[in-house]
Amino acid sequence: MTDALKKYLVTFFPENKTITAVEGETILKAAERADIYVNSICGGEGTCGKCRVIVRSGEVQKHASSLLSEKEIKNGYVLSCMTKILSDLVVEVPPESSSLQSAEGKEETSNRFSSLSDWDFNKTGFTLDPLIRKVRLHLPSPTLEDNQDDLSRLLNAIRRETGLSGITTPISILRELPNLSRDSNWDLSVTLAELGGSWEIIRIQPEESSKGNFGIAVDIGTTTVVAHLINLETGLTLDAAATYNSQITFGEDVIKRIIRSEEDGLKPLVQAIVQDINDLIGKLCLESNLTPDDINAVICAGNTTMLAIFLGITPRNIRREPYIPPLSDPPPIPAVQVGLKINDNGILYCVPGIAGWVGGDITAGIIAARIDRSPAVSLLIDIGTNGEIVVGNQEWQLTCSCSAGPAFEGSGIACGCRAVAGAIDKVDITDDGTINYRSIGGDPPIGICGSGLLDTVSEIFRAGILGRDGRFDLTRKEKRLIEFDDQPAYIIAFAAETAEGRDIFITQGDIDNLIRAKAAVYAGISVLLKAIEIGEKDIEQVYVSGGFGNYINIDRAICIGLLPDIDRKKILFIGNGSVRGAKTMLLSREARKLARDIASSTTYFELSTDNNFMDEYTRAMFLPHTDIENFPSCGGKEVPKV
Amino acid sequence: MTDALKKYLVTFFPENKTITAVEGETILKAAERADIYVNSICGGEGTCGKCRVIVRSGEVQKHASSLLSEKEIKNGYVLSCMTKILSDLVVEVPPESSSLQSAEGKEETSNRFSSLSDWDFNKTGFTLDPLIRKVRLHLPSPTLEDNQDDLSRLLNAIRRETGLSGITTPISILRELPNLSRDSNWDLSVTLAELGGSWEIIRIQPEESSKGNFGIAVDIGTTTVVAHLINLETGLTLDAAATYNSQITFGEDVIKRIIRSEEDGLKPLVQAIVQDINDLIGKLCLESNLTPDDINAVICAGNTTMLAIFLGITPRNIRREPYIPPLSDPPPIPAVQVGLKINDNGILYCVPGIAGWVGGDITAGIIAARIDRSPAVSLLIDIGTNGEIVVGNQEWQLTCSCSAGPAFEGSGIACGCRAVAGAIDKVDITDDGTINYRSIGGDPPIGICGSGLLDTVSEIFRAGILGRDGRFDLTRKEKRLIEFDDQPAYIIAFAAETAEGRDIFITQGDIDNLIRAKAAVYAGISVLLKAIEIGEKDIEQVYVSGGFGNYINIDRAICIGLLPDIDRKKILFIGNGSVRGAKTMLLSREARKLARDIASSTTYFELSTDNNFMDEYTRAMFLPHTDIENFPSCGGKEVPKV
Repeated sequence: MTDALKKYLVTFFPENKTITAVEGETILKAAERADIYVNSICGGEGTCGKCRVIVRSGEVQKHASSLLSEKEIKNGYVLSCMTKILSDLVVEVPPESSSLQSAEGKEETSNRFSSLSDWDFNKTGFTLDPLIRKVRLHLPSPTLEDNQDDLSRLLNAIRRETGLSGITTPISILRELPNLSRDSNWDLSVTLAELGGSWEIIRIQPEESSKGNFGIAVDIGTTTVVAHLINLETGLTLDAAATYNSQITFGEDVIKRIIRSEEDGLKPLVQAIVQDINDLIGKLCLESNLTPDDINAVICAGNTTMLAIFLGITPRNIRREPYIPPLSDPPPIPAVQVGLKINDNGILYCVPGIAGWVGGDITAGIIAARIDRSPAVSLLIDIGTNGEIVVGNQEWQLTCSCSAGPAFEGSGIACGCRAVAGAIDKVDITDDGTINYRSIGGDPPIGICGSGLLDTVSEIFRAGILGRDGRFDLTRKEKRLIEFDDQPAYIIAFAAETAEGRDIFITQGDIDNLIRAKAAVYAGISVLLKAIEIGEKDIEQVYVSGGFGNYINIDRAICIGLLPDIDRKKILFIGNGSVRGAKTMLLSREARKLARDIASSTTYFELSTDNNFMDEYTRAMFLPHTDIENFPSCGGKEVPKV
Repeated sequence: MTDALKKYLVTFFPENKTITAVEGETILKAAERADIYVNSICGGEGTCGKCRVIVRSGEVQKHASSLLSEKEIKNGYVLSCMTKILSDLVVEVPPESSSLQSAEGKEETSNRFSSLSDWDFNKTGFTLDPLIRKVRLHLPSPTLEDNQDDLSRLLNAIRRETGLSGITTPISILRELPNLSRDSNWDLSVTLAELGGSWEIIRIQPEESSKGNFGIAVDIGTTTVVAHLINLETGLTLDAAATYNSQITFGEDVIKRIIRSEEDGLKPLVQAIVQDINDLIGKLCLESNLTPDDINAVICAGNTTMLAIFLGITPRNIRREPYIPPLSDPPPIPAVQVGLKINDNGILYCVPGIAGWVGGDITAGIIAARIDRSPAVSLLIDIGTNGEIVVGNQEWQLTCSCSAGPAFEGSGIACGCRAVAGAIDKVDITDDGTINYRSIGGDPPIGICGSGLLDTVSEIFRAGILGRDGRFDLTRKEKRLIEFDDQPAYIIAFAAETAEGRDIFITQGDIDNLIRAKAAVYAGISVLLKAIEIGEKDIEQVYVSGGFGNYINIDRAICIGLLPDIDRKKILFIGNGSVRGAKTMLLSREARKLARDIASSTTYFELSTDNNFMDEYTRAMFLPHTDIENFPSCGGKEVPKV
């Protein structure tokens, strides 16, 4: 960028925000600088088609793309990543390109990743004993006879009240104490954080101005980031919020992001996730009439790579043999040191992980499912961008990980979107072939989310539109069966019905993605069960975790071969097990201790070097499976000759 | 030092000690490495002339200096700091260059605030067990079978090597570990800091680039700041440096600085002392070929107010009834949080204090004097801007504080200066009235330092120029007796003799200052002894601490009434007890623990509310004292009628 380059004003709508851009800069880059969020999962390479915007006025240098229809091109749609600015512009970012779509409190809206109503700390089996404690104290005023120093006076009062000793005090508190204690007439509220065996004072306040004790639990997913606001004195979840992980622009899966971090440095990825979490914290606080400073602690669960990047630690060795993570059990860290904007002395806790490819999100899931409490063998299936499977009981746990891709989260598919208002989340095909769909909030549809995708595939398979090999039956004459980008596609909602006036459809590629994902998960389950030599019927309970999980139809999930065909009553959706387990640990020191024990004792089963897995995976690439007899309740169809 | 440099053998006499030196190294540096003490006060700049040695044989590269006479040059004398080694050498260190200052106060040495030669950690009675440990590790390389994460690998190796567990790791180390461990082929040097019961990793380095383990002990005096550089692996003091406390511009005593901090805020005072300490650290490192980053820890002793200000904590309540300090036993603090420029993860330790007016410098003095080891009752007198007195034995300690003012440190007096080159430090008046003075280094005089002031007062009193009431005898006709600033003054060095061409004199005000100071100290001693109902003769040992203390003439200190008139053999100068005790604590965890026990168990005796003290003080305002019979060895003169 030199002075010689011409500069133009680019105005983005609906934000009505104007930024100066230089000639030749892409619209996507300008949007990033303007803090306007535009979807992108291919890293700006013009291949994902998610970053489409509408140029309302001005001159641009376009780039041909098969990802835009003729009609769209006529209407001014461009791929923002491939379109260069040649004059002042007015650009509109359509809703489907902006993930910042509010939930507006409708039923089944943005909080599909974080449903609150069905979680109750009191049912976890743990006692409320949070990592952060708040103590109310009245200290005796000093006199010539009782002339101990301010710090000793405080520490002695805490010891009398709580029995705790060996408490550490950061310098900012030492600096506040003399004036604050006298100004408050020695009526103090003291907040203490557990730092692995010892406690630290993280806040002192005049008792009268003390607000309560709040924490945030975060699940850092590869695709989705979820945060819950928790009252640490009651154990209640006050609110929840979710967003796509902004790192998506650096690559849609973990491996791509590791590579990107090696090429361009870790910093942009770190900044992206830190900003996401700070945004969620800010949003949660705003809605609960708190400020981020009121938050005393954040607990994070996530896969090993996501957590390492968030901490600013290189994940490079995770993808290199012998696949060593930089750390499994991060110590408590001053939140300010990772850029979190909460109480200046607030603490970041991380849920300990199990291996390079099975992170703290799964440890948290185990805690959420309480697999450890029963002698019976249970199965935990976490469905996200990676699928992780745990089989175990109170004595032992065995786990593995398989790459599912972001399809279940509505990402990486042609008309995919997050489960926000307007997302098609349910599809039925009646016997006469009529398609009924439901969009979240009843809004004109904007795309298909993960559960909608699963429903669609299941239904068009059942209706015979898809074969058992997952291919469209192209012999059918249907107006919904079209061609898009040189591949067959099937329209769910016609342009006239949709928010953007564009058809919403599912492509052969989308179906392939979903089948690969479900095959990977099912193969992982099969391998683990074989390793311990038990059958599907011996499983006492199946816990399905993942934001997506709560909203799928069990029968349909079984009938596409994602879940084993067992008694439906044994299958329990536990929602986002990662964030639930993390919350439990923030509220119970015992749970956190248990999590550390489980993380260090769980056995990791490496699938990538296991021949069985490839066999199982190949056999699972059919609908529902090559071995149709494994799915007796799914009607059964013969395996096609392939 | 590279392999290309030639190496030579240098033998020092009279020690008959041989060391290998590289070509071009100075004789002074070689002597230092050989632990041969050679005076030097200019920091090796060829300006003080104290470091002369005699080259008996061999070739050197000389440097012309006006500090050597022709005869000396002919006899082989060189300035060791400016003379480079060009062959094997035999060097003799003449007595005047190796004045190993003993407690009897024979000769002045280089670093009057910090003489190094007479302190030996091995004589402290503690075992070398420093607060900072450096561990060399070879970690097993990870494999598919041994696939623990990097952090666990490191912590397990540390545990195997040291037995230590529960070690904490700051995030900067977590971020360094993955690349650094692989780049160094898993040969690591790990530096650990004790944080009150647990240990923290404060540095990881490739073993090959590891330099050693260094710390700094600092005595923050109201007037003078002293720092010693210590090798924590050997216990040896490598160098020492001193400077005036820059806070002097905000007020010469503690009370004035507290008031100033309340009026104008704490920040300017904090910045002043932090800068002083950073300057001293920088200077010490430069001279020892280290960088401040090589310093792993700083330990600070100082009075309660100085330490609070240094930590950025308001000392305001120390001067208000009930005189409560903000803290007595500061926890270990990340050095960066107080602005110290050392290892980014380095630790600041503080010596625990006893009360608002008896700080960690006195706790350190008790550790330096080892009062705690004997059943006999000893006295510790610390002479600085405040005079603190401790009386005690292995069972108990009692302490008090009295304001002496900065006169003993050469500050706050008309022609005062610190004990640097050119300071008049010794004054004699012959029987015929001739005045002989000595200036440090033999330089043209620039002013009078503390010991020079004491000498002057003692001598002009003995010569009858001052009366027992401390007033000049104005009836004397003397050209040296002048008037300055409306008060009588007495010239020590005439303008023609001085560096600045201005008379150097002592005023009535200076004398009043000194008398108030010595009266306060003596009164404090008297009150404590009365409180425990013992007499001066029952004292087994008197330890005199304070940079100043080492250089005074005991007889004269007694004859002006500063010290009790007891057997001179019982009086031991321990130099700067504060920095010595602090060093001991940095080198011995046991010493630090003992210091904390002593600090919390020592009884503080408040003089300001004690009527006895005012009586004693008033009686001590004469030379040597109102009760002349208390000073039988001082010749005795009648108390003048006042």
